[in-house]
Amino acid sequence: MSKEILSKFGKRVRDERVRQGLSQEELAARAGVHRTYIGMIERAEKNITLENIEKIAIALNIDVSDLLKF
Amino acid sequence: MSKEILSKFGKRVRDERVRQGLSQEELAARAGVHRTYIGMIERAEKNITLENIEKIAIALNIDVSDLLKF
Repeated sequence: MSKEILSKFGKRVRDERVRQGLSQEELAARAGVHRTYIGMIERAEKNITLENIEKIAIALNIDVSDLLKF
Repeated sequence: MSKEILSKFGKRVRDERVRQGLSQEELAARAGVHRTYIGMIERAEKNITLENIEKIAIALNIDVSDLLKF
């Protein structure tokens, strides 16, 4: 169950990033995280923290709550 | 901004726990986390991970998305 939420979140981030026409590099720059970090999140390889969820949400211009709606 | 979201989340957890008449110990037992961990989250002393957000949401019987609505 726990791993599953990381997969759902990663898919949500990737779908929204692609929908906005952003590369992983562009999203990383906007969020102020490392270039490789976005890929790891999208592949559910990292148990992301709430502070970083917020950084990505702001970079995608989405409410944290909406980014976790899946 | 980042620290603020931890404070908002901690307050949301505490408010909901108290509303449900649960002690920190009871919520910790339900969520399968350490007794002191709930107090640290409520005081915004930890940058909680998505897996643990989900554990607390399930223990409170609230959607993760709703627990992050504030």
